Amino acid sequence: MLENLKKMVWEANLKLVEYKLVLFTWGNVSGIDRDRNLVVIKPSGVEYSEMKPEDMVVLTLDGEIVEGNLNPSSDTPTHLELYRRFPDIGGVAHTHSAFAVAYAQAQRDIECAGTTHADFAYGSIPCTRNLKRREIENDYELNTGRVIAEHFEENGIDYNAVPAALVCSHGPFIWGKDPLEAAKNAAVLEEISKMAYLTDALGGGIADKHIQKKHYERKHGPDAYYGQNR
Amino acid sequence: MLENLKKMVWEANLKLVEYKLVLFTWGNVSGIDRDRNLVVIKPSGVEYSEMKPEDMVVLTLDGEIVEGNLNPSSDTPTHLELYRRFPDIGGVAHTHSAFAVAYAQAQRDIECAGTTHADFAYGSIPCTRNLKRREIENDYELNTGRVIAEHFEENGIDYNAVPAALVCSHGPFIWGKDPLEAAKNAAVLEEISKMAYLTDALGGGIADKHIQKKHYERKHGPDAYYGQNR
Amino acid sequence: MLENLKKMVWEANLKLVEYKLVLFTWGNVSGIDRDRNLVVIKPSGVEYSEMKPEDMVVLTLDGEIVEGNLNPSSDTPTHLELYRRFPDIGGVAHTHSAFAVAYAQAQRDIECAGTTHADFAYGSIPCTRNLKRREIENDYELNTGRVIAEHFEENGIDYNAVPAALVCSHGPFIWGKDPLEAAKNAAVLEEISKMAYLTDALGGGIADKHIQKKHYERKHGPDAYYGQNR
Amino acid sequence: MLENLKKMVWEANLKLVEYKLVLFTWGNVSGIDRDRNLVVIKPSGVEYSEMKPEDMVVLTLDGEIVEGNLNPSSDTPTHLELYRRFPDIGGVAHTHSAFAVAYAQAQRDIECAGTTHADFAYGSIPCTRNLKRREIENDYELNTGRVIAEHFEENGIDYNAVPAALVCSHGPFIWGKDPLEAAKNAAVLEEISKMAYLTDALGGGIADKHIQKKHYERKHGPDAYYGQNR
Repeated sequence: MLENLKKMVWEANLKLVEYKLVLFTWGNVSGIDRDRNLVVIKPSGVEYSEMKPEDMVVLTLDGEIVEGNLNPSSDTPTHLELYRRFPDIGGVAHTHSAFAVAYAQAQRDIECAGTTHADFAYGSIPCTRNLKRREIENDYELNTGRVIAEHFEENGIDYNAVPAALVCSHGPFIWGKDPLEAAKNAAVLEEISKMAYLTDALGGGIADKHIQKKHYERKHGPDAYYGQNR
Repeated sequence: MLENLKKMVWEANLKLVEYKLVLFTWGNVSGIDRDRNLVVIKPSGVEYSEMKPEDMVVLTLDGEIVEGNLNPSSDTPTHLELYRRFPDIGGVAHTHSAFAVAYAQAQRDIECAGTTHADFAYGSIPCTRNLKRREIENDYELNTGRVIAEHFEENGIDYNAVPAALVCSHGPFIWGKDPLEAAKNAAVLEEISKMAYLTDALGGGIADKHIQKKHYERKHGPDAYYGQNR
Repeated sequence: MLENLKKMVWEANLKLVEYKLVLFTWGNVSGIDRDRNLVVIKPSGVEYSEMKPEDMVVLTLDGEIVEGNLNPSSDTPTHLELYRRFPDIGGVAHTHSAFAVAYAQAQRDIECAGTTHADFAYGSIPCTRNLKRREIENDYELNTGRVIAEHFEENGIDYNAVPAALVCSHGPFIWGKDPLEAAKNAAVLEEISKMAYLTDALGGGIADKHIQKKHYERKHGPDAYYGQNR
Repeated sequence: MLENLKKMVWEANLKLVEYKLVLFTWGNVSGIDRDRNLVVIKPSGVEYSEMKPEDMVVLTLDGEIVEGNLNPSSDTPTHLELYRRFPDIGGVAHTHSAFAVAYAQAQRDIECAGTTHADFAYGSIPCTRNLKRREIENDYELNTGRVIAEHFEENGIDYNAVPAALVCSHGPFIWGKDPLEAAKNAAVLEEISKMAYLTDALGGGIADKHIQKKHYERKHGPDAYYGQNR
């Protein structure tokens, strides 16, 4: 079942390797079939080079395994929560890419320092609060998803305009319209994290609000004129 | 028309990938035929690996499309303004390479810290002022070119001796005698930006004026003696 | 003798190159056969690309060469001391990977800044004290092993939960259940060292104790649920 | 003439590319035949990929061209001065590798922060003084060599124990027993420069004098026991 989606999720996982975002078995990408409410995700702890499309695990949005012989990624409950809370997204990626992780570990948002960031997201990439002890000890991965969604809701952040979050002391979760876009966004997030880091070391800088808006909208707004699709 | 120039512009765009200056579809290079006053530029948002010489777009210096089925780069008006204001240049490149972007985002010039810089440019690589709200909301890309040219004119900087500018909160525009030299200069700019960054972290340093002059002139002056062309 | 172990030690040494942890002939990996109390280690100063499995040197735990025509790594007495003091380990690696070395040279522990670290080790990667003059001048390599083991014992650190140490002003020694795991752990240590470095530059951050425990245990604890082996 | 030395100099120049120490035509390596007092050096401004052994230029120690159709490297007088002042060396390399350049631009010595440095050099890699205006305007490249040799002599530094110098606001010159060792030393210098940079950012650290001596001597002293040559 869902052979096309399994192939796309498999491909998107391999993109994490191609984009140099993961070491060994770290990282994972999933995708959702919104009509059937089924999620496809990478198995846990399997080498990327040995993984095949048919190794992908299929689950319901409640986490019941529908198909697959392997354990799904241990981060699966986080992915499922993001699909439940963010109804427009079609793919989720998680990596431990170094510059994005550094911001998560320093417990800092990535503020918009320039147009490369504004071409990707409208506003800061937020860093969540720390999970509480009981949130860690029970349903940890589910609570990781909850704390992301809570942060977006409480701060009025549009998850369509900001396609990533940093989980405090952990690392980035990134999303998109499908698994391949989620993986691509993971690469862009790492690049803007690196640029933010370098900018910070040079004394810092925040992009003017109007240029942030201009760049975001020329690429993603209703009158976007970047690319070939206008 | 202009098949040779289209091929050179296409090649110069691929050099941005080879020099590791761009991610995905970011960046663009153009070239000009000064006799016919026609500019050739990369199409917008097209994958480098899929682009062919015949996909390059030909425009007049006023921005009228003369040939090509694809939208030109969204940064085209910036390129055109540079060709109008800097009559000696034959190629323009734009990248989001990380170290040059970091200086643009930190809103800082790249001062000449040593001979690697002086072999490339005579004096600082300047960072422009921020664009004003009305300059952003109307004719943004044209105004980006204007603010670069204005900066060079108002500060008496010779664009032949300083072949690059950092647009504030954005990134570098780089030029040269033809598209291939512009792309090569983009790579050199990134390398000297990296060296300036590392130098700054170690406490900073500015090269003595006489050594700046010596190195610039031994490579670019009337009595240059670097290379095989004396 | 020990052909399988020699092949695995040879492979693990080549992994150091594949993981980009070593320059030229730097670094070494060894393995032990606990039943026979024999250690297999890389020869000293031999190019990785020219090394063959049969070049590996076999020694007793007391350092007597049992087989091999080449000199063993000059760090051999350090490896032997680690095998004697840490009876559960089966492989030892030593590299001069840049970020781990930077912490050793700055004489600082690598504190746990996030879950990437906690997935690997439970608590800080410790940096040893400086060796004393007489420890340097006599039996230097043996004393290097002693100072590591001493640090773990005096500070009540479990070498099974913290599979690496930084030798002050020198660099990392890393271990695992076999030579291949030791090499892999060397790559993970370098990655978390890099993340710690970047985090430190952004202002620093220490992971909450409960999340450290959670991540370590979900991967290494008695109820681990990462991967396919539960 | 000197076909073997020309081949070795050509190979050593290509090693700079392989070791990722140079961009475009930057950098150069030379070698000397001490019996005939003839120096072989890379031509100026030629692409590494197009260079052939027969393009190498042969000069006397006074700078007279004995063989070769191309201009020698513009840095030739620096190499010649080093051969005249440092009679034991057989090869000289010059690069603009980024971390070594950063120390030269910050006008700082690279102090010995650990054993990786001590395995390579006994003591700091010194940064020279700035050249004076008249030294820049007349015989600049010759004076560059003089200022290096002067620094070693005035500070009692043994050029056999410290095989590199940083020229202030410029970059490193590195030497060795032959051109290939000079190129290899250029790669080691860049690696220890990187480690020193990272260490500095973490608060700094200087290796104890006894461990510096131990590491230098176990590799280069009369009782060296590293490698297979004891």
